[in-house]
Amino acid sequence: MKIKDIGEFGFIDRIKSGCLIREKDVIKAIGDDCCVFRNSGRLVSLLTTDMLVENVHFLRDTIPPFKLGRKAMAVNFSDIAAMGGTPKEAVISIAIPDTIDMEYLDSLYDGMRAIAREFDVNILGGNTTSEPEHLVINIALIGEETEDQVLYRSGAKVGDIIFLTGQVGSSAAGLDILLHKRPIDTFTALIDAHLDPHPQIAEGRIIAGSKLAHSLIDISDGVASDLGHICDESKVGAFINEDKIPVNDIFLKYLEKYNLDFERLALHVGEDYILLGTAPESSQEALGKALKAKGCQFFVIGKISSEPGIKLIGRNGQTRQIRISGFDHFRREEQ
Amino acid sequence: MKIKDIGEFGFIDRIKSGCLIREKDVIKAIGDDCCVFRNSGRLVSLLTTDMLVENVHFLRDTIPPFKLGRKAMAVNFSDIAAMGGTPKEAVISIAIPDTIDMEYLDSLYDGMRAIAREFDVNILGGNTTSEPEHLVINIALIGEETEDQVLYRSGAKVGDIIFLTGQVGSSAAGLDILLHKRPIDTFTALIDAHLDPHPQIAEGRIIAGSKLAHSLIDISDGVASDLGHICDESKVGAFINEDKIPVNDIFLKYLEKYNLDFERLALHVGEDYILLGTAPESSQEALGKALKAKGCQFFVIGKISSEPGIKLIGRNGQTRQIRISGFDHFRREEQ
Repeated sequence: MKIKDIGEFGFIDRIKSGCLIREKDVIKAIGDDCCVFRNSGRLVSLLTTDMLVENVHFLRDTIPPFKLGRKAMAVNFSDIAAMGGTPKEAVISIAIPDTIDMEYLDSLYDGMRAIAREFDVNILGGNTTSEPEHLVINIALIGEETEDQVLYRSGAKVGDIIFLTGQVGSSAAGLDILLHKRPIDTFTALIDAHLDPHPQIAEGRIIAGSKLAHSLIDISDGVASDLGHICDESKVGAFINEDKIPVNDIFLKYLEKYNLDFERLALHVGEDYILLGTAPESSQEALGKALKAKGCQFFVIGKISSEPGIKLIGRNGQTRQIRISGFDHFRREEQ
Repeated sequence: MKIKDIGEFGFIDRIKSGCLIREKDVIKAIGDDCCVFRNSGRLVSLLTTDMLVENVHFLRDTIPPFKLGRKAMAVNFSDIAAMGGTPKEAVISIAIPDTIDMEYLDSLYDGMRAIAREFDVNILGGNTTSEPEHLVINIALIGEETEDQVLYRSGAKVGDIIFLTGQVGSSAAGLDILLHKRPIDTFTALIDAHLDPHPQIAEGRIIAGSKLAHSLIDISDGVASDLGHICDESKVGAFINEDKIPVNDIFLKYLEKYNLDFERLALHVGEDYILLGTAPESSQEALGKALKAKGCQFFVIGKISSEPGIKLIGRNGQTRQIRISGFDHFRREEQ
């Protein structure tokens, strides 16, 4: 069945069930010009939006629609996590080429609803349209947080430790497998990391709630680029230690097998959707303990310095400046 | 200059100035993972999103980028107007083919910032990406309103009058001129109505503040389709009088010149972005007075009935059922 068989309004009827995950404080969900919900009043609102475009962010034949739906939501959830907030209400815009089957779309929305349920987020509305060729998904997401807990990119201070809340590089390696059509072999975990990232809302809440960190961002463009954003906004520089970058064994096995560059895949590609933050050195132990107590990870990879730029201290002890560049959608040097 | 000459982050730097229209209660605008702003607490939030896709919603060679920017914002403002609310904070996602010049994009954002200033709306963030072929713009907009003033599609009651806050059909005629590449001649006003619609925030606020209306929607899909939405959501039907449909003389002159059907262009195409509402007959005079006192328009075009469907009472006195169909992006019967 194609979407033209049921039309725009038939499609909306089909996708709207199961979208209201949490009824409290929602006055109007899908079905009017806007959705309407009550403010908490004592919290501040966070608002973020992310667009996924076919052949730019994903290839339709390498990601199942259910996982694409999850990922489209996950990348937005991750932006809320990167401020330390809690995601609450989402609206979805979708532009659909008429070659796409209704079954594909059902599965896409099943994925979005599944991750929405997992994180207690409502899908409250959106916009559906046709597109001549490429599937385009845009999600706007509102989150909330107490004002004094919000963590910005601009808070890093000279002397801060730089930490990560998970391993990096697996998503980049997964993308590499897909782009080069390499055999999946024993590398399923890398593909999964790329196709089905897990937004770190819990980690963000722990870090924000602890009030121990100075700045926070999520790894979407790559460690180099995202740490670069923190340095830019905080007007500082950074050192990172190559041997402290947390990666897993499967990632290292993959690099070895295809003779790929560690720095490029671990630091310059991104889409890990873990968190990178900075905190005073005196808070390092308490912050690590707070995260680990809840089963979360904590790796210290370097330090904020007053010198501009990001320097990598290599395994050989030599220090080199690294380019602050991740995925730039218009320049595309890295991918 | 192309966008690849300055890159994604250069582009963001270029567009972000002038986007913070109203600083009060904004804690973080463009430049972090999310924007952050204070809730008013005593109001409810409205959230809407709309996507414009090249070759679906607009042809790049028929609308100047400045007007496209205005219109992309205007259609979202209109959704807030259709609930009686006030638009406050916007985030913009844009997918840009690399054939587009930087000058085009500057002008597009100039248009968005111009209408944002006009309506005191902040542009607080967004997302930029490339697109293989088509320009895609998605805007998500938050508005606010006191809870007891929000007007829904679902409030219409049998016996209500049906009103419009402006003339219809001009936008449809303007689109017709552009699609058929007809000479503009004396029809500039029709083109303007299509390319540069004026969202009726003032009208929406007056209607909501008066507490005299039962339901409200904006004319995006066409009177037939949008009144159809009110009837569906309110579980009622409607009669409308053909000779009461407000249109202007230029529209009539255009229909006559090209021998076009009144009903199709006045009722089935849409994009007028005026408001259609219902109110008890006893409120008709007061509501009309309240709108006209502020220089707004008010036309009563029919009545809500208990019989399902929409019936058109023709100029000849004969009544016929009209199809409840406007622009369906997947069926596209009408355009």
